[in-house]
Amino acid sequence: MKITIAGAGAMGSRFGLMLHQGGNDVTLVDGWADHVNAIKENGLQANFNGEEIVAHLPIELQSNISSEEKTDLIVLFTKAMQLDKMLQDIKPLIDKHTKVLCLLNGIGHEDIVEKYVPVENIFIGNTIWTAGLEAPGRVKLFGDGSVELQNLAVGQEIAARELAKVLFESGLNAKYSENIRYSIYRKACVNGTVNGLCTILDTNMYGLGITQFAHDMVVTIVNEFAAVAKYEGVDLDISEVVEHVETCFNLDTIGMHYPSMYQDLIKNNRLTEIDYINGAVSRKGIKYHVATPYCDFLTQLIHSKEEILKAK
Amino acid sequence: MKITIAGAGAMGSRFGLMLHQGGNDVTLVDGWADHVNAIKENGLQANFNGEEIVAHLPIELQSNISSEEKTDLIVLFTKAMQLDKMLQDIKPLIDKHTKVLCLLNGIGHEDIVEKYVPVENIFIGNTIWTAGLEAPGRVKLFGDGSVELQNLAVGQEIAARELAKVLFESGLNAKYSENIRYSIYRKACVNGTVNGLCTILDTNMYGLGITQFAHDMVVTIVNEFAAVAKYEGVDLDISEVVEHVETCFNLDTIGMHYPSMYQDLIKNNRLTEIDYINGAVSRKGIKYHVATPYCDFLTQLIHSKEEILKAK
Repeated sequence: MKITIAGAGAMGSRFGLMLHQGGNDVTLVDGWADHVNAIKENGLQANFNGEEIVAHLPIELQSNISSEEKTDLIVLFTKAMQLDKMLQDIKPLIDKHTKVLCLLNGIGHEDIVEKYVPVENIFIGNTIWTAGLEAPGRVKLFGDGSVELQNLAVGQEIAARELAKVLFESGLNAKYSENIRYSIYRKACVNGTVNGLCTILDTNMYGLGITQFAHDMVVTIVNEFAAVAKYEGVDLDISEVVEHVETCFNLDTIGMHYPSMYQDLIKNNRLTEIDYINGAVSRKGIKYHVATPYCDFLTQLIHSKEEILKAK
Repeated sequence: MKITIAGAGAMGSRFGLMLHQGGNDVTLVDGWADHVNAIKENGLQANFNGEEIVAHLPIELQSNISSEEKTDLIVLFTKAMQLDKMLQDIKPLIDKHTKVLCLLNGIGHEDIVEKYVPVENIFIGNTIWTAGLEAPGRVKLFGDGSVELQNLAVGQEIAARELAKVLFESGLNAKYSENIRYSIYRKACVNGTVNGLCTILDTNMYGLGITQFAHDMVVTIVNEFAAVAKYEGVDLDISEVVEHVETCFNLDTIGMHYPSMYQDLIKNNRLTEIDYINGAVSRKGIKYHVATPYCDFLTQLIHSKEEILKAK
């Protein structure tokens, strides 16, 4: 199968590498020139569960797509705010047969994908695989994970199951989900709470968790996510989701970690994905006439912090 | 007139000093032993508009009030969270003739004062005088200011006007206000926006003001203050108040300053007065069944930050 990984950062590299090892014809596409050039020169270098490997995968700079040869499957793994531009840039690779699997963090990306791809070819998913980018062209891939995915359009379940099978056969532990939106919202609740709160409070997840108001803030934010999710046919189990979020506070597991948004903004001075997490809930709140003040305020605070820190 | 200044920090020292210079019999009371001892030993030292002066004012540690001699007037100038304890400690000085003037920042302090003093003896006010504490026993007093005050109980207007006269005659530029609650709410809107926002965003007032969402956040918070104020007979002119708040952003005047809450928490690792500003609006919101989510969230964030920084 001819597969294009659109957004070949840490996670895109993992998927590209594993799908390549599984016998697919994989091409990477990315917007970061240093990373693209490093992979062109030396291949994709990975520490893969402790083993050093090099995979000579073709890679193209997204602003400079040379081929018009259509691809069978595009796996989207950009940062949320780069999705639209990526889809514009890879338009030459898309025809009416090209399937698109969107695995970005956050919610509501399908609204953007639908501008470029017919809905029956769009699949949305969720993954708990992890990956780290150590340097241009070099990733660190440890541990296990899984993928859930589902068709966006009615009647495309068989295609979704086939797609899951392609990923499964490359070791990506993928399965068809009966209710992917539930999983996406449930995961977004984690990002919508610990990400923004740890970033604005300048603390790790344990540090947030031990404050007396952490629970109240998490509950209020999860309730806002649930209120808009309901309008999309997703009936979140609020207390289960809150409990799930609060596992992040555990000192013995991941509590000492700083969430990805903290890493982006506070450590690396990069813009955040807040518009695609809490900001998306705010936009949906306006659409459905549901008040989402905590998401509104947290989005405004994170954007203000981006401006104050002159993040790029 | 026998006057007790309860809370002889920077502002209390200014009022004590000026009322003493005006011929009143002033005693200071404070809870900070180093400051009390310094004034006992060396007098209150002040740089008063450039002139070095020393005033030998009596001062007592609040936990160790030695006299039971009643006082005519108590001017309250504690930090908000120290008000209740102060009133407990100075109870021996209060009889049915003792008037109490509450000049603390924030809103709703009269609820605490009423536990100790009959309502007809309570006066609330607002000041734009400034003062700085440079070291124990030493203050810096520059510039001009004014005081507005009003009786809390119906029928006490004459007493309020007399009280204003006492302050006026000591150069404190005091006047009777027809609607002190309006002034108090208007000032609280400044504290309820720039204080919390600059503190949580770690920036000065100019830095806050140039962010694209500052205006939206200020408008939303001022609207919450206005919604609860309405239940107390105060009809805030929202756009005028927002404009007033936003004068703080001006680089040519006070924009480069960090507000007092920032100084307390971020610079000096002290607990903040958030419960008596945004937190007071939240409590009033519950009382009047008005939603105040921005005040709720900002109060929770500031308390979380206090905990994370182990403020005391």
